[in-house]
Amino acid sequence: MNVLVVNCGSSSLKYQLINMENESVIAKGLVERIGIDGSNIVQKVPGKDDYKIEKPLKDHVEAATLMFSTLTDSTHGAVKSLDEISAIGHRVLHGGMKFTESVLVDDKVKDVIKECFDLGPLHNPANLMGIEACEKNAPGKKNVAVFDTTFGMSMEEKAYLYAIPYEYFEKYSIRRYGFHGTSHMFVSRETIKFGNLKPDAKVIVCHLGNGASISASIGGKCVDTSMGLTPLEGLVMGTRSGDLDPAIVQYISHKENKNVDEVLNILNKKSGLLGLSGISSDCRDISKKLAEKDPGAVRTYNVMLYRIAKYIGAYMVALAGCDAISFTAGIGENDIAIRKAVCDYLSFLGVKIDDERNNIRGEARLISTDDSKIKVFLMPTNEELMIARETLRLAK
Amino acid sequence: MNVLVVNCGSSSLKYQLINMENESVIAKGLVERIGIDGSNIVQKVPGKDDYKIEKPLKDHVEAATLMFSTLTDSTHGAVKSLDEISAIGHRVLHGGMKFTESVLVDDKVKDVIKECFDLGPLHNPANLMGIEACEKNAPGKKNVAVFDTTFGMSMEEKAYLYAIPYEYFEKYSIRRYGFHGTSHMFVSRETIKFGNLKPDAKVIVCHLGNGASISASIGGKCVDTSMGLTPLEGLVMGTRSGDLDPAIVQYISHKENKNVDEVLNILNKKSGLLGLSGISSDCRDISKKLAEKDPGAVRTYNVMLYRIAKYIGAYMVALAGCDAISFTAGIGENDIAIRKAVCDYLSFLGVKIDDERNNIRGEARLISTDDSKIKVFLMPTNEELMIARETLRLAK
Repeated sequence: MNVLVVNCGSSSLKYQLINMENESVIAKGLVERIGIDGSNIVQKVPGKDDYKIEKPLKDHVEAATLMFSTLTDSTHGAVKSLDEISAIGHRVLHGGMKFTESVLVDDKVKDVIKECFDLGPLHNPANLMGIEACEKNAPGKKNVAVFDTTFGMSMEEKAYLYAIPYEYFEKYSIRRYGFHGTSHMFVSRETIKFGNLKPDAKVIVCHLGNGASISASIGGKCVDTSMGLTPLEGLVMGTRSGDLDPAIVQYISHKENKNVDEVLNILNKKSGLLGLSGISSDCRDISKKLAEKDPGAVRTYNVMLYRIAKYIGAYMVALAGCDAISFTAGIGENDIAIRKAVCDYLSFLGVKIDDERNNIRGEARLISTDDSKIKVFLMPTNEELMIARETLRLAK
Repeated sequence: MNVLVVNCGSSSLKYQLINMENESVIAKGLVERIGIDGSNIVQKVPGKDDYKIEKPLKDHVEAATLMFSTLTDSTHGAVKSLDEISAIGHRVLHGGMKFTESVLVDDKVKDVIKECFDLGPLHNPANLMGIEACEKNAPGKKNVAVFDTTFGMSMEEKAYLYAIPYEYFEKYSIRRYGFHGTSHMFVSRETIKFGNLKPDAKVIVCHLGNGASISASIGGKCVDTSMGLTPLEGLVMGTRSGDLDPAIVQYISHKENKNVDEVLNILNKKSGLLGLSGISSDCRDISKKLAEKDPGAVRTYNVMLYRIAKYIGAYMVALAGCDAISFTAGIGENDIAIRKAVCDYLSFLGVKIDDERNNIRGEARLISTDDSKIKVFLMPTNEELMIARETLRLAK
């Protein structure tokens, strides 16, 4: 039984075909520049050469047509026909407060995805186009929507409400949603499985990538998470500021004579590691400059780490304890020094990293010592697999 | 030796005359409606009837004239002449990054207070008027400026920098300053003295009043504090939102068709306890409604407590431990249930409140059990006394 996982951006379509018997990827590909000159698809099938086609694609429907024909190509494909694809799972950014679980797509579900355009203006329209393109190209197949916000739906009121006029929650649904939800769900649950923890283990997941967020969960259910109404809140990210005195929006607006949209653009795209360091949004570049004691790199590294450490402290209180901390995503899976430095902040709690175990990248592993008071893991994320599992569960 | 402490608002002048031999208040008063119809002064001198004069006062100079004549009034006053006032200490909101300590006022100091008008637009102009009014009325007396931001000046870069373009720090001094600094300084130091703690004790101070903030300090020196560039950031306050996804400013702006100043006005004046509960900005009103299980009161109480508890967790990591937690200010000194509820969040760390000891208001006391892993105190704040002590130290 194979499940196709689709993740659409405004001009892109990323996909993976996963054999759910053994959860192995049997094909993956990327369609880029949809609706722009130079549209193309690149597909990778294990054991075969990469396959690239350049071809004008005017919309996501044409992109999906090309994806399906490439997947079933007799030479370069992975399956003989669409019959070998049991169901399609879609990554959808925002499900508002309507969906506390992944769902089989029907007209009502599509309406809700539309209603949430305001909450996910960059992603939801593209996600919906992807669903509709699959419906047109593979009629009759079950489509499942897996929302990035679903994980956050188990938060209690005290964690998701902001202290603003309550009517803004009632009228505009302004609340903490949290993003990277599929990743946090996957990693928190995998941590419990892999670490052989009790089913209701308290796990803190540090998803550190170009976007970064942290979550606190009990038994794989979200208790709190750092991203908020939008993915701007929380940790220091590649180009996003994370937490801020909200009055800074006003202050910059006046000082720089910019309107609120222009200021938010700066906070989203020119802040974070990039803005604070003046070096790069890529953490690896900061780390390189850190070795040279570049002051921009030093301050940025310190602010980033301190923020993560403080969140872990806050979330320990939110959980009333912590059984395990897992690091995931690009930085979390690959940056040995950052994992170590974050845990050094927690040494007063008896958290101890085993330097030898921690000397690893991209592989699930316990990286704390046997006598560490809290277990620490490197746990690679796999959002596509999580989406495929959810799709299988619902399409059965 | 008597020190006069002055705290000026835009149309008010609050003062206390303190005998520094025994740190007792020998007179205190309030001049209100300066420059407005109905100007008046009310002065309290222990052992005498309250003394009230109504009299037109066109500015702070006239207000100070009235204050000095009332203080030296042969019947209602507290001293015979200005000779009995050794020095004057002024509460000044914002000292920017120029002053890491309280200072004797000279022209340069006044220039800096002026330079910080942008950072403290509501308070700094009034604070400066107060200083100049005292200089005119009592020439030759030493004036000392005690800044609310001084306490935060010992924070490290990692705690005071925001992850925004670094040029905004360089050009506009956008950073975390922290407010209620005089209170945090006083309470953290008093906690060490009163609790007989080691000189470099790690103390978390919860200043919970209509404005609310929390600080982490080592040996009375600030390591981190929740208010930021402005007093908007941090805890849930009477009418201020505290922490927020900065994108909410933009979201409300679009949804409500308001400009950034209008949105910030809502976040400062119509949010917090008031906005979230729809009941009141006064915590006592929320507590009353809580007894009736009013849903607005329940959610507000829960959000407020959870935020405080998470900050304590974050600050424990910032301090790498914690020796004592002190509650202060209106709510912190008087709300038995809130102190208890905050500490209940910390019971997993071995924090235990002694209900009998905690059954007290407004008096310095250890309120945790003898076996509590962290000592918890009720520690009344006294900003005026802190200002007087600083004034005495510098004027000597």
